[in-house]
Amino acid sequence: MRLHLSTWQEVETYLETSKGIIIPIGSTEQHGPTGLIGTDAICAEAVAYGVGEATHAIVAPTINVGMALHHIAFPGTISLRPSTMIKVISEQITCLAKVGFNKFYFINGHGGNIATLKAAFSETYAELEDLQIANATQVECQVANWFMCGSVYKLAKELYGDEEGSHATPSEVALTQYIYPEAIKKAPLSEEVGKGHNIYGAKNFRQRYPDGRMGSNPALATPEHGKMFYDAAVKELSQGYLEFVG
Amino acid sequence: MRLHLSTWQEVETYLETSKGIIIPIGSTEQHGPTGLIGTDAICAEAVAYGVGEATHAIVAPTINVGMALHHIAFPGTISLRPSTMIKVISEQITCLAKVGFNKFYFINGHGGNIATLKAAFSETYAELEDLQIANATQVECQVANWFMCGSVYKLAKELYGDEEGSHATPSEVALTQYIYPEAIKKAPLSEEVGKGHNIYGAKNFRQRYPDGRMGSNPALATPEHGKMFYDAAVKELSQGYLEFVG
Amino acid sequence: MRLHLSTWQEVETYLETSKGIIIPIGSTEQHGPTGLIGTDAICAEAVAYGVGEATHAIVAPTINVGMALHHIAFPGTISLRPSTMIKVISEQITCLAKVGFNKFYFINGHGGNIATLKAAFSETYAELEDLQIANATQVECQVANWFMCGSVYKLAKELYGDEEGSHATPSEVALTQYIYPEAIKKAPLSEEVGKGHNIYGAKNFRQRYPDGRMGSNPALATPEHGKMFYDAAVKELSQGYLEFVG
Amino acid sequence: MRLHLSTWQEVETYLETSKGIIIPIGSTEQHGPTGLIGTDAICAEAVAYGVGEATHAIVAPTINVGMALHHIAFPGTISLRPSTMIKVISEQITCLAKVGFNKFYFINGHGGNIATLKAAFSETYAELEDLQIANATQVECQVANWFMCGSVYKLAKELYGDEEGSHATPSEVALTQYIYPEAIKKAPLSEEVGKGHNIYGAKNFRQRYPDGRMGSNPALATPEHGKMFYDAAVKELSQGYLEFVG
Amino acid sequence: MRLHLSTWQEVETYLETSKGIIIPIGSTEQHGPTGLIGTDAICAEAVAYGVGEATHAIVAPTINVGMALHHIAFPGTISLRPSTMIKVISEQITCLAKVGFNKFYFINGHGGNIATLKAAFSETYAELEDLQIANATQVECQVANWFMCGSVYKLAKELYGDEEGSHATPSEVALTQYIYPEAIKKAPLSEEVGKGHNIYGAKNFRQRYPDGRMGSNPALATPEHGKMFYDAAVKELSQGYLEFVG
Amino acid sequence: MRLHLSTWQEVETYLETSKGIIIPIGSTEQHGPTGLIGTDAICAEAVAYGVGEATHAIVAPTINVGMALHHIAFPGTISLRPSTMIKVISEQITCLAKVGFNKFYFINGHGGNIATLKAAFSETYAELEDLQIANATQVECQVANWFMCGSVYKLAKELYGDEEGSHATPSEVALTQYIYPEAIKKAPLSEEVGKGHNIYGAKNFRQRYPDGRMGSNPALATPEHGKMFYDAAVKELSQGYLEFVG
Repeated sequence: MRLHLSTWQEVETYLETSKGIIIPIGSTEQHGPTGLIGTDAICAEAVAYGVGEATHAIVAPTINVGMALHHIAFPGTISLRPSTMIKVISEQITCLAKVGFNKFYFINGHGGNIATLKAAFSETYAELEDLQIANATQVECQVANWFMCGSVYKLAKELYGDEEGSHATPSEVALTQYIYPEAIKKAPLSEEVGKGHNIYGAKNFRQRYPDGRMGSNPALATPEHGKMFYDAAVKELSQGYLEFVG
Repeated sequence: MRLHLSTWQEVETYLETSKGIIIPIGSTEQHGPTGLIGTDAICAEAVAYGVGEATHAIVAPTINVGMALHHIAFPGTISLRPSTMIKVISEQITCLAKVGFNKFYFINGHGGNIATLKAAFSETYAELEDLQIANATQVECQVANWFMCGSVYKLAKELYGDEEGSHATPSEVALTQYIYPEAIKKAPLSEEVGKGHNIYGAKNFRQRYPDGRMGSNPALATPEHGKMFYDAAVKELSQGYLEFVG
Repeated sequence: MRLHLSTWQEVETYLETSKGIIIPIGSTEQHGPTGLIGTDAICAEAVAYGVGEATHAIVAPTINVGMALHHIAFPGTISLRPSTMIKVISEQITCLAKVGFNKFYFINGHGGNIATLKAAFSETYAELEDLQIANATQVECQVANWFMCGSVYKLAKELYGDEEGSHATPSEVALTQYIYPEAIKKAPLSEEVGKGHNIYGAKNFRQRYPDGRMGSNPALATPEHGKMFYDAAVKELSQGYLEFVG
Repeated sequence: MRLHLSTWQEVETYLETSKGIIIPIGSTEQHGPTGLIGTDAICAEAVAYGVGEATHAIVAPTINVGMALHHIAFPGTISLRPSTMIKVISEQITCLAKVGFNKFYFINGHGGNIATLKAAFSETYAELEDLQIANATQVECQVANWFMCGSVYKLAKELYGDEEGSHATPSEVALTQYIYPEAIKKAPLSEEVGKGHNIYGAKNFRQRYPDGRMGSNPALATPEHGKMFYDAAVKELSQGYLEFVG
Repeated sequence: MRLHLSTWQEVETYLETSKGIIIPIGSTEQHGPTGLIGTDAICAEAVAYGVGEATHAIVAPTINVGMALHHIAFPGTISLRPSTMIKVISEQITCLAKVGFNKFYFINGHGGNIATLKAAFSETYAELEDLQIANATQVECQVANWFMCGSVYKLAKELYGDEEGSHATPSEVALTQYIYPEAIKKAPLSEEVGKGHNIYGAKNFRQRYPDGRMGSNPALATPEHGKMFYDAAVKELSQGYLEFVG
Repeated sequence: MRLHLSTWQEVETYLETSKGIIIPIGSTEQHGPTGLIGTDAICAEAVAYGVGEATHAIVAPTINVGMALHHIAFPGTISLRPSTMIKVISEQITCLAKVGFNKFYFINGHGGNIATLKAAFSETYAELEDLQIANATQVECQVANWFMCGSVYKLAKELYGDEEGSHATPSEVALTQYIYPEAIKKAPLSEEVGKGHNIYGAKNFRQRYPDGRMGSNPALATPEHGKMFYDAAVKELSQGYLEFVG
């Protein structure tokens, strides 16, 4: 069930049997010479829809822009500041909590969102208690990163070994190829690729990772791999969601 | 060209010939007993993609959640506060302006966004000048409301007369029916419908507009009408975009 | 009745029979070579006092500084950022709502304030509901722009035709001449005047409107016209106020 | 010279010979059973105009609403939060500093503004340095409290002794009587008056100071006293201003 | 009793007999060629511990960083902006007020903190009332500046006369020498020292006070003096605290 | 070298040979019936001083209050909101970066700080680039959690096995016992202890962890263990710091 394709009365009915909601969150950021700028949002949304179908959970609209400040030296990247993202997350949760939602399951496609999401959850719990919302103490939020699923990680290691890298990875590229086969990109990839550096500011990042990849070889990706990743993530996160809403 | 389906190098190439970008912005809010909660985002996105294709402009990811505070007494509505939305808009524009975009064309699906968008533009211009971004004085933003296109307005009047109303209108419902024929909703609509009241707070709104409609009769909508609205809006806003980027 | 010339006990008494209050809001911004920097505040205040007298409504102190960021490249302009103005408006309303005022009628002298005012109202309604103020759902705010009164608009067209323009207009200059005849300015006005451009950032504005006027010829203004505008605006807004407080 | 009665070109001319500006700041707050709610703004504005005339300095529009949170349990009081007032002050100074003003002389009518004003100055200096405004290191701000002038204080002690008190004082009431003789209020004053308590929150304040006065007997005020206070304050602050802009 | 060396159950027990808490607040800022950067925090903390012992009051952890923006042109200075410090103070008080603390006694070591602290108190009272905390109207905050104690001031005048100055004073240096005898600094002090200037921005400050001292001669300080200042401050503020908690 | 025991000239000298600084950050929060409220700050500070001595690095004053919102239902806990903590961290780094510090090594004693710290770093990098600080692209921040050192973790497992738990752990209690042997607490510990629950809001937390411990048995702690933890952490983080500043 997709929130944006539902009516408010259908949501009201849904709330009679479940207080859980899935919120896909991605990012709009460079993913190397062959990765889509929307990779993280595309993956999170696709997996979230899959989980929603498998568990009969409602899925909110995708948060397309996240915390990608370290990528903004590459054209096309769009980012919120962490303090703004905290407000966005908090206000979205609050609207939903006021009408009865309790369990917020964020299916996340971007490692750079995790810290800010967790900070946002802490801030939100405090605000809900201050607002004296009826169900404030029942509100629980969780980040579920599809790319950190055990099954996904294992599969990526088997298929790509060290060439999986940590950004613009073949696994995430594969998943976007499965979802958007018409948008598979071909571009030359230098053999040498930046790797092993920590992430600091945007200019610093671009100096160390000149084409945007972090130790990855996305040329290994195929749409068939993408389906495998999709299936693994949907299966694992569906179970995760059901345990969460318990 | 869709930003989320592009690579950063494609964006770099695009910037060699155009500084314009289209940003669809909608809302996630109740649209009466038969209107989709995502109506405003769905319509804005569809029209934006149409305009993007017609004008070879790049289209950014849709901003799905806008300023819908007056609807939050209905379950499923998600809203940002105006001050938060100002930050979101400002940060998105700033990321893009820093890499060279100058002309921001917001295709908007929700009347409630207009005031906050305009306030956000003013705040953003001032911030860009303070940041001393190279192209700060060239940055220009515009709100283009598909539902306020002359051709759309005329068509709605012809088809629906006064039953067009001003929220959960048959015209926007028709457009979503054209885009998502699989999500056409049937639900009983009371003959009586709230109308003529100003919009204030959320509880006040729900008292005056108990089923969420504002003077509209969305039962008149058809997917065929939707296509007509789509064509009219795409045509008129394509021309508008081209004049804007001049 | 003027709030600043009343005691708190008189306000207490007033609240026994009315929950309405008029708040004049202007701007401190350049108005071309012959227009006063305080034009928008002067006009709003004068009209507000007139309306207050005609309707026995209380009038709050004038908000002299508004949203004039596009004028700050001209010396003497003072502006708030929209996000700050939202806080100012919200806090002023909240103080008054806590003691029982319900109907806030902003008599506005500056087009650039409208978007931010409307955004502020939305934010305020939500905050009042969160604060659980007794009368939160009764609070209603309205912007009443004296220069957009039908009677004023008609008169300006009759007197000035296209030379009314849209900033530093003869109608607003006339009104200030009526109020402050001792401050009528004489300065040469170039025959050519910027017109037809949209408003973006401050430097951009000054390039397009080098002497600050937007298509207007304020040399046509007279104090006698000013009185006519005053009378028309007071009459029309007095009726507007009475309908609003109902 | 009054900013709101000047044109931008007159301001430009003024800046050729002076970088100083006077900004009156008051408050909109209860002043006991016979004091005007606008007392602090009225006094600050009148004295500022007097100083402006005596020194040929330009006077900005009055900031009518200040930091009066401890008075908001009395109807008619309007207050900003300190953090909002800091933004207001900072943005007003910044607009003026960008076009060349350096010396900001705040003539203040309300003790409750002092702490927040000083905090605002510190914040503003830092922001101006961050903005790399040309004259950032020359910007200097000062609070000049008319009621704390040595000559004013001495006169008040002579005229009223301990009955001067510290809020709704006969000296400030006298000054408003001089300025607005048509608004002299008569109301019974209890013989007993709260005194000697510190100021904390609004409800706490009203409990301790039930009619709003703090140890004062405003019945002693006369318009003739008001003129004496006015003359003393204008003389002393004119000298203060000249030393400040030095 | 020190909060950081207590358990939560000990705090619970403490609250049965007292609602008062002492919060030391200092600054991390240059103190001339021989003064410690931590001077203000060191002094505040030491005095607070002394007062805590003398009065059996609980002492919270020291706020080490305050409002020192005018010193940041000297390396080693760390400062909050006033608006941030307001949030810090407000959130700390709110946490403690929610569990029952009512009387907040800030023992302060830095003149530059005073305005912001007072602004923070005002903001906090208003927030606590809005949060509808049970004891909101009982919450009272006070700033107690050890260096402004009558006995301290008198002693400093006796020992140093005009050479006490107003920053990097021998009295505060002496107090740090008493507490940290192992950190007594020797460095040449120019005979000439900046004095008599007002405090504005950081660069302005460093131009006027090139070695960081304000009219002081810290070479006069001795650890023995430090003990005298300590004893005087602890005695006077212990009495102050007891009166405050009443 | 401790910043608070240094002069600004000593800092200037230090910067000639190193751009690194260590910042201890803890929390002020309940640590079960026998753990000190200051545990996290005490441990972070002690380890930071040890690392500072071992590596000749400068150590900034300890940030005593962090992100502990989930503990505020227990008396004595003090917390910042994440968005406020982001500002605090950002402003502290900015002050130091402006005078030349580049490498910020946060020695952290509290798991609840990690997400907000990381969010703060991202926000700070972006702000420094916007401020156009000379060394903006060289600024690098790192969180070093003493309790997550490999050697610490191994030792805790050896000494306590599963009874280490995850809050109010015997390892952190042991470290405080080593540092403050005079503050070793004895209090009865229930045999049963909450464990295995995720962390959400404060009231939720207290329901699930009624005495504040999370699966731990702090009765196992001894000062001797504390020394072992101290030595292990100092050794490992000293190496970590040296690698970081490279």
